[in-house]
Amino acid sequence: MEEMNRQWCVAMPHEGVALSLERKHFSYQETKMPKLEDGELLIRAVYFSCDPMNHAWVKGLPGRFEPIPVGSPMRGGVAGRVVASKHPEFQVGEAVTGFLDWADFTTSRGLDYTGTPLQRIPAGFSLATGLATLGMTGLCAYFGMTEIGKPKAGDVVVVSGAAGAIGSIAGQIARIAGARTVGIAGGPKKCAYLKDALGYDDAVDYKTGDVLENLSQVCPQGIDVFFDNVGGSVLDAALANMAHHGRIVICGGMSSYDGAGVGITNHMMLAIQACSMEGFFYFDYVDRFSVGIERLSEWLKVGKITEVLDIAEGFDAVPDAALGQFAGANLGKQLVRIADDPMA
Amino acid sequence: MEEMNRQWCVAMPHEGVALSLERKHFSYQETKMPKLEDGELLIRAVYFSCDPMNHAWVKGLPGRFEPIPVGSPMRGGVAGRVVASKHPEFQVGEAVTGFLDWADFTTSRGLDYTGTPLQRIPAGFSLATGLATLGMTGLCAYFGMTEIGKPKAGDVVVVSGAAGAIGSIAGQIARIAGARTVGIAGGPKKCAYLKDALGYDDAVDYKTGDVLENLSQVCPQGIDVFFDNVGGSVLDAALANMAHHGRIVICGGMSSYDGAGVGITNHMMLAIQACSMEGFFYFDYVDRFSVGIERLSEWLKVGKITEVLDIAEGFDAVPDAALGQFAGANLGKQLVRIADDPMA
Repeated sequence: MEEMNRQWCVAMPHEGVALSLERKHFSYQETKMPKLEDGELLIRAVYFSCDPMNHAWVKGLPGRFEPIPVGSPMRGGVAGRVVASKHPEFQVGEAVTGFLDWADFTTSRGLDYTGTPLQRIPAGFSLATGLATLGMTGLCAYFGMTEIGKPKAGDVVVVSGAAGAIGSIAGQIARIAGARTVGIAGGPKKCAYLKDALGYDDAVDYKTGDVLENLSQVCPQGIDVFFDNVGGSVLDAALANMAHHGRIVICGGMSSYDGAGVGITNHMMLAIQACSMEGFFYFDYVDRFSVGIERLSEWLKVGKITEVLDIAEGFDAVPDAALGQFAGANLGKQLVRIADDPMA
Repeated sequence: MEEMNRQWCVAMPHEGVALSLERKHFSYQETKMPKLEDGELLIRAVYFSCDPMNHAWVKGLPGRFEPIPVGSPMRGGVAGRVVASKHPEFQVGEAVTGFLDWADFTTSRGLDYTGTPLQRIPAGFSLATGLATLGMTGLCAYFGMTEIGKPKAGDVVVVSGAAGAIGSIAGQIARIAGARTVGIAGGPKKCAYLKDALGYDDAVDYKTGDVLENLSQVCPQGIDVFFDNVGGSVLDAALANMAHHGRIVICGGMSSYDGAGVGITNHMMLAIQACSMEGFFYFDYVDRFSVGIERLSEWLKVGKITEVLDIAEGFDAVPDAALGQFAGANLGKQLVRIADDPMA
């Protein structure tokens, strides 16, 4: 009997800003199992990763990739098991991650939709951890913080979206470097979590009071490193509080994707305080992913990094989980577990 | 008979944005000649330099300096002659520059209002050139372009405010490095000047059509270096056109000083294209001013840099010239010649 293959597909084009992505852009579809051809492997997806990039796949990213055709499966981070293989380098049972279809089953010739080789999850770690802290999420935090933020002992490091996927790891990497860490998050629950569970020295609630003023009270000597996942008015508030020769890492911009949200008016602080603001493209670091994964693995093993996963259950939960991240509904990394691990 | 000392003073406090500085903030005053004390030299001002920093002196710059008290002389770049000296290191007849009172005569103990030693104008150059291309204006272009922009041969370098004081030099420095240079300026007269007199390869008129669109047509492969003197919507248009690993130099922000103007909404391009946006503080380079002056002197001597001076005449012309720069009235560096050079 042939197994069915569930998929979440693009229901209609979406040219708006990320925050305007809606449930109606998702369509559910059941298809046949893909046929395995020579040189291919078959992956049974177990976890989907919810990232802002989900929207970029739908809308397309000029100069990077075309929009997913309407009716085709959505794409995103997937962790799964190789359940069949006609590929010489992959064996049944291996745990892999990559940017693949949001479907139960998908075939691959060893590369994902970004042209990047499928990553093998290091031994001793779960599929979820392989997709989150040892995947794009952890690596963005690692390379953004260590290569651009470069915190030194005693630096004041502020992270926005601090309770989110990347932010929760970025702050811990800065703490490992000996920095004093301040997290910005929305609401008292998340702010308490930053201090109690993630080891932040201070927390600023962007939903209460004036962020610019609150940051200046918590960082009276200014901010040495600002690691930004939010953009908009939060970035503007941080700019106004930068210390001389401070560094701003543009990792994400939840409120600013596609030019949405409040414009930034304090960029002249870059000149007044001789600061830099720098972004990075995750795939530029592909040759060094293994270095980052090794460091993050060690920190996880010895307990220097606490992984925070927010796992939704079931294939039906995918659209809400994917949309919820844009509203800040998640604590830590938002995943969806769509099936049991066939090797567990 | 005692000579009179004319001064332009601060008539009232100004806490608004730079663009709202008005004629009413200037008051004219005649005082007695300052008395020279031991350890002081007396400078006869010949040229005043009109810079955005004139406003910062009036308003004050948090963490840098207090506002000039109402009734006290305005401050700014001054080039003049030492006409009397009780200072062991300065002789009568020397040509010097520094941030001093906007007055006919001023005394100094060898440092200016920023705490920087008075600079001697290199032999063979006029007082005007010493204040402009071999002063803060030229040095900002030099350090901003060579230390942060770092253009390589074949790079596409775009300069905003390209017909202005710093921009007119910055573009030429990029051309010397072998870059293709594109200038942004306001109006057909300035744009023609960029190509005809300053050697820019292309010009974009920000007053005609859509800057973002026009830039993308002139720079189809994207912008490698954007040297910004303007901020606001011009910076936003450049952000949307950056090439991978491009570099934005924040030198000035004529439309964005004090948080004025249109907010920036395209900063996420820094992440998408892995670009940096970096400002610099002029006085951080004080130890290397002499290096910059030497390079700029050579380029001037051999004709690799054309100096563009916009010289207003007379002490009465000071407020209009100082205010005009904010409206882009000047072509090249705006100076005011307030008196004859006593040594000429």
